[in-house]
Amino acid sequence: MKTLWWAGDALALIDQTRLPAEQTVVECRTYQEVGRAIKMMIVRGAPAIGVTAAYGLAIAARQSAATETGSLIADLRQSAAELRTTRPTAVNLAWALERLLGLAEAQHDVAAVREVLLAEAHHMAEEDEEANRRMGRFGADLVKDGDSILTHCNAGGLATVAYGTALGVVRAAHEQGKRVHVFVDETRPFLQGARLTAWELQQEGIPYTLITDSMAGHFLKSQVNLVVVGADRIAANGDVANKIGTYGVAVLAKENGVPFYVAAPLSTVDMKLTSGAEIPIEQRNPEEVASFAGVRTAPVGARAAHPAFDVTPARYVTAIVTEVGVLRPPYAGSLAGAFASQGSERRSG
Amino acid sequence: MKTLWWAGDALALIDQTRLPAEQTVVECRTYQEVGRAIKMMIVRGAPAIGVTAAYGLAIAARQSAATETGSLIADLRQSAAELRTTRPTAVNLAWALERLLGLAEAQHDVAAVREVLLAEAHHMAEEDEEANRRMGRFGADLVKDGDSILTHCNAGGLATVAYGTALGVVRAAHEQGKRVHVFVDETRPFLQGARLTAWELQQEGIPYTLITDSMAGHFLKSQVNLVVVGADRIAANGDVANKIGTYGVAVLAKENGVPFYVAAPLSTVDMKLTSGAEIPIEQRNPEEVASFAGVRTAPVGARAAHPAFDVTPARYVTAIVTEVGVLRPPYAGSLAGAFASQGSERRSG
Repeated sequence: MKTLWWAGDALALIDQTRLPAEQTVVECRTYQEVGRAIKMMIVRGAPAIGVTAAYGLAIAARQSAATETGSLIADLRQSAAELRTTRPTAVNLAWALERLLGLAEAQHDVAAVREVLLAEAHHMAEEDEEANRRMGRFGADLVKDGDSILTHCNAGGLATVAYGTALGVVRAAHEQGKRVHVFVDETRPFLQGARLTAWELQQEGIPYTLITDSMAGHFLKSQVNLVVVGADRIAANGDVANKIGTYGVAVLAKENGVPFYVAAPLSTVDMKLTSGAEIPIEQRNPEEVASFAGVRTAPVGARAAHPAFDVTPARYVTAIVTEVGVLRPPYAGSLAGAFASQGSERRSG
Repeated sequence: MKTLWWAGDALALIDQTRLPAEQTVVECRTYQEVGRAIKMMIVRGAPAIGVTAAYGLAIAARQSAATETGSLIADLRQSAAELRTTRPTAVNLAWALERLLGLAEAQHDVAAVREVLLAEAHHMAEEDEEANRRMGRFGADLVKDGDSILTHCNAGGLATVAYGTALGVVRAAHEQGKRVHVFVDETRPFLQGARLTAWELQQEGIPYTLITDSMAGHFLKSQVNLVVVGADRIAANGDVANKIGTYGVAVLAKENGVPFYVAAPLSTVDMKLTSGAEIPIEQRNPEEVASFAGVRTAPVGARAAHPAFDVTPARYVTAIVTEVGVLRPPYAGSLAGAFASQGSERRSG
């Protein structure tokens, strides 16, 4: 099962706001619908929204009435700007749009632009799943038989096209026959852990225990011996932006001598940023904090805050698992080396 | 407004499971109803359930058909045993029951037992509020004008007869004219922060921001400069059992150089326990983690865990604010000194 796929004339997305109660599919026929799906978190997870945005721009190219490349590129720039604002923290979104815009500019006629963008979106979808499987194999070497693994949010198949990043590591260890038990942070306010990670693990037959985010410390002190999470953006020094609450888990892991791993493709690394302080943190609607599963919890008029991400300084990160291998501190060197080994310089400009 | 009061022939409790949406009162006419109210968390908070249990035993004395003290004491022992099992972590409950049983045994006729137990329950209710006001004044000295204060769970008026322990400190600082801003952890799974602490602060006109538990680290890193929480049991070495999630807040406070204060009356200190490892941790129904307000969040069949408390080692506790003063490490000495200064040896046996 995939999180998103091309349905001939539309982008199909599993509606993640309705899982696990309902399994429904949303079809997006315009780039505006794609942007709305990203903003409403019908699709979420840094790698998944990167590929979704790529399809969004491919759809924008088909929507445009332009008959010559200059005006088509202008239309695409406008559509890309709109798509880019939907979620500011995950860099995969901007990365995917830049990659497609670069390809569009290299074409000589409008038909080629339209064809190449859709082909590239397909290619990125395949590349994402392949990267996750490689990441899973590298990461599984860090997992021992009998490990208790804690994860925060959902960095699973649903956060990617398929297989997952952090959950890809768990999945690969499970496929190798290692017995693992996963502690799943429910991940307020959107409950991606309770709704999505628990659902994926249950389907996979991997044993897990759902906990509230506030229980992570208790179990890190007593039972958990490995943490693995995903990432929304990694700065050149190894600072990691990920779902709000990740920083707390990282500090508690370090305090208890538990290794803290981040699993993310190189498309999540933003070599233009020297540290996490430069990563923009999305502020979402505070009303999402004052209610729970559609039921209002706080008094009427309550003031709430809703930063959707936090930044974990690199000193708490034991290693970063990527599709080219497991990177260790100091990250300035290992991240640069990873890009060099990939033979890609697309993130260095 | 009080959390609980004697209504002539019954114990009246504000139903805390329905706040803030509804303000309703539950009246308990039997000790079994009192026990159920504690277990169902209609009343909660260590000091409040201590006083509630005292009224429960006073009611049990009135329920008993015994006509001589021997059989009345036997009935009271049975009732106390039932009340004691309702919530195992907060020591105030056992402390209150022991105090009343001791008084009952010193009486010479059944009428005196019945009279003395009710009078003592009234006395404990008054004592609780007075202790909180003293604690508030001592604690307010730790608060500076302009402080941003984080708290977890509800250690407010609703966790006590009135005024609160941790929120009592905030309230006293506010009454002194210090401008404070409170960051309120929502406190999953029961949401005592979102439902009760936010409600109390709003009524008091104290500015606050509601956050998910997972945001505490983010705000401790950036804005909060003081933490104050309550306690359910404190061991003789200063280890503190409090609502699940407190340990995580304490570690994050220390990591960010933010002082972490515990406000609790001496009735919360259990000098019989040498360390927090001996404190029994209540395990509640895991279904409470997999759903909220009748809305299921996790997939059907999800396995969850629900430890209701965690233990914060004394090394993370900057000071303990009590009704006899602010205690500093090493706590073995300062706690013993506090009991000596109180002229009470009731916890030392």
